Amino acid sequence: MPDEQEMPRVVVVGAGFGGLSATRALAGRAIDVTVVDQHNFHTFEPLLYQVATAGLEPADVAYPVRAIFGREPNISFRCGRVDGIDLDGRAVVLADGDRLAYDHLILATGATAGYFGVAGAHEHARPLYTLRDARLLRNHLLTVLEEADARPERFDGGPTFVVVGGGPTGVETAGALMELISVSIRRDRLRIDPARTRVVLLDTADSLLTTFKPRAGEYAQATLRARGVDVRLGQKVAAVTESGVQLAGGATIPAHAVVWAAGIGVDGTLAATLPGERSRGGRVAVEDDLSLAGHPEVYVVGDAAAAPLGHEHEGVTPQLAQGAIQGGRHAGEQVLRRVAGLPTLPFAYRDKGIMATIGRRAAVAQLKVGPVVRGTLGWLSWLGLHLVYLIGFRNRLVVLLNWTWRYFDWPSGPRLIVADVEAESEP
Amino acid sequence: MPDEQEMPRVVVVGAGFGGLSATRALAGRAIDVTVVDQHNFHTFEPLLYQVATAGLEPADVAYPVRAIFGREPNISFRCGRVDGIDLDGRAVVLADGDRLAYDHLILATGATAGYFGVAGAHEHARPLYTLRDARLLRNHLLTVLEEADARPERFDGGPTFVVVGGGPTGVETAGALMELISVSIRRDRLRIDPARTRVVLLDTADSLLTTFKPRAGEYAQATLRARGVDVRLGQKVAAVTESGVQLAGGATIPAHAVVWAAGIGVDGTLAATLPGERSRGGRVAVEDDLSLAGHPEVYVVGDAAAAPLGHEHEGVTPQLAQGAIQGGRHAGEQVLRRVAGLPTLPFAYRDKGIMATIGRRAAVAQLKVGPVVRGTLGWLSWLGLHLVYLIGFRNRLVVLLNWTWRYFDWPSGPRLIVADVEAESEP
Repeated sequence: MPDEQEMPRVVVVGAGFGGLSATRALAGRAIDVTVVDQHNFHTFEPLLYQVATAGLEPADVAYPVRAIFGREPNISFRCGRVDGIDLDGRAVVLADGDRLAYDHLILATGATAGYFGVAGAHEHARPLYTLRDARLLRNHLLTVLEEADARPERFDGGPTFVVVGGGPTGVETAGALMELISVSIRRDRLRIDPARTRVVLLDTADSLLTTFKPRAGEYAQATLRARGVDVRLGQKVAAVTESGVQLAGGATIPAHAVVWAAGIGVDGTLAATLPGERSRGGRVAVEDDLSLAGHPEVYVVGDAAAAPLGHEHEGVTPQLAQGAIQGGRHAGEQVLRRVAGLPTLPFAYRDKGIMATIGRRAAVAQLKVGPVVRGTLGWLSWLGLHLVYLIGFRNRLVVLLNWTWRYFDWPSGPRLIVADVEAESEP
Repeated sequence: MPDEQEMPRVVVVGAGFGGLSATRALAGRAIDVTVVDQHNFHTFEPLLYQVATAGLEPADVAYPVRAIFGREPNISFRCGRVDGIDLDGRAVVLADGDRLAYDHLILATGATAGYFGVAGAHEHARPLYTLRDARLLRNHLLTVLEEADARPERFDGGPTFVVVGGGPTGVETAGALMELISVSIRRDRLRIDPARTRVVLLDTADSLLTTFKPRAGEYAQATLRARGVDVRLGQKVAAVTESGVQLAGGATIPAHAVVWAAGIGVDGTLAATLPGERSRGGRVAVEDDLSLAGHPEVYVVGDAAAAPLGHEHEGVTPQLAQGAIQGGRHAGEQVLRRVAGLPTLPFAYRDKGIMATIGRRAAVAQLKVGPVVRGTLGWLSWLGLHLVYLIGFRNRLVVLLNWTWRYFDWPSGPRLIVADVEAESEP
């Protein structure tokens, strides 16, 4: 390997699916790679709703970045917050003032909850996009349940939880919430009335899982309703307040927690500061090879980018782990091509299917061809696929153990309310 | 079982070792028991130092109280903060204004870090007595290590960590810190100089582990020194500042973290509000049967109480899990005796031995009779005993898995910095 000084310097911003995938493509090459993230861990976002509903622990869905690339001498990690990109000076500017110079830059900065201008949503609804979001939501949900047990008169018999958004995250969260409530009553003997404890799932569309084939949405709707979720379709949220949700029709739903699963956006993130065009949700328009217009040395991948589908298909890649993984890998490979003096290739998205779980032994999986797989088989497919993609053998094993436990319904599970900010240690 | 209204009401304050042990003694009896704790979980305190040094996850050393007594219909749990005890009115007053009336009260409110008037210790030293303490300490330690990697010039090559107190907690924390640093350099390739990264262990006494036989302390000292810990004995801490520790002799030790393992006290806890005499560290003086003088219906157990050793031995029970477990059980049994119209019996402490681990394959265990067990055998004894006492099969299994992983040195482990209060989600 040539001397470090001579090697092209690549900075990868973000250790999500896109950033890790890009970095993997560059591992073991004669390239000096620095991964930057404000967190020292990668988050397996598809399972955050399990952390929020006390099914999994934070460490089950997170993995230290340094542990991932610990044996790759050409890859370094810098834990720090990025304040901006100096595109002309080719440097990433950190919050502490340090500058990371680059020859090639891969931006995989992700997205954040998108509130689409709904009044009060930012202040009162609870997003589910980071590990911190998941922990805070869990602490809140468990605290509400404890309060409902201690002072039932304040809760009219039981609390109400509203989930806004009938996509995979909303469907999965509503299903898992119903399970949490069921365990709380049955196992933990919380004195709340199941008939008065409500989970309401709202969506503006007339069906759930609109990105799936219709029968997947129908199955999700029927299963959630059978499990007690109050699914309300064709409902537009006008505002979120401290005490609940106001619908566009004028009705209000009093709620003790509002989970925001209605979508994501790029506003307010680092990618929003980039020059150039924007697509829906603020996603950064990119060239066919995923580079930024006018900056062939800069790539934007994952949720932050509006990557073209390629293969002469119209449209952009979905904001899913697969889009980020494939985009990141492509960007990494284009860096290698450019270093080798080769022209870059256009990106093309390969649809590997989508899936969502509704709870124990119930999920829908939809591959590119073939029928929608649902029920226990769908659940097993979902479980297997997620385990395969979870980083690290230890995480996989611990998550599998946790799920096995839950499946056989042992009275365990990490239902801990552990907050950084709280009263003193005395009981 | 008689009607709930007729059953004697027992309130147990605190879900630590003492409170759980008392509650267990009352399980299945014709007694209406309410356990109150501000947290919804029990903490296995002897392993908190492992959470602080990223060896274990919070959920590995904590267990939901409701899950422990989920199948005991005579036991309820109330998650809430206790504001005071109305001894005359026989009621526990909660912070939210609710009152829990009792016929018998068992107070197992524990202790908190004792700073013994050392200036700045409360503000700048980091205790290790609650799960929150452990999480905050871990986040701080890992953040310091990341900062030392990113900006070595600010750390003169490496950070310094000071542990104050050479008892079991201090010895275990210093040993585990050394392992964390070693993993960080070797596995995570943190660019810090091992020779300039220091763990300093301070104690006022002339040996470590003064409550053990001398050869245990000698072994701990030799092992810690061999592993690179700077053990400094006969050193009195005069003050803790933002930038380190000031010794009574005038010398200062600059430090990036000061862990306070110098002792515990009852000041500031609920037990401090009780009437009557106090013993060393503010512990509440109790009668031979562990009841409060003048209040035979109130028992104080565990770290908060100065329980007599009994068996005609002078002195008080040590502030260890065993003292709390035995005291709690005794108090529960005395409640049963009084309900049955029998006189109470005096408490007698049974010394089951003490142990401390220094790191992988190194620990000291000292039983009441026989020699001090040390080295690998001591470590295995320590590991086995702690696994046996860990609550819940799942916790035991997960902790055992974690330890097995660490033993074989796989590049895993929960080295996550997850804070509730932090910057936004963008990398």
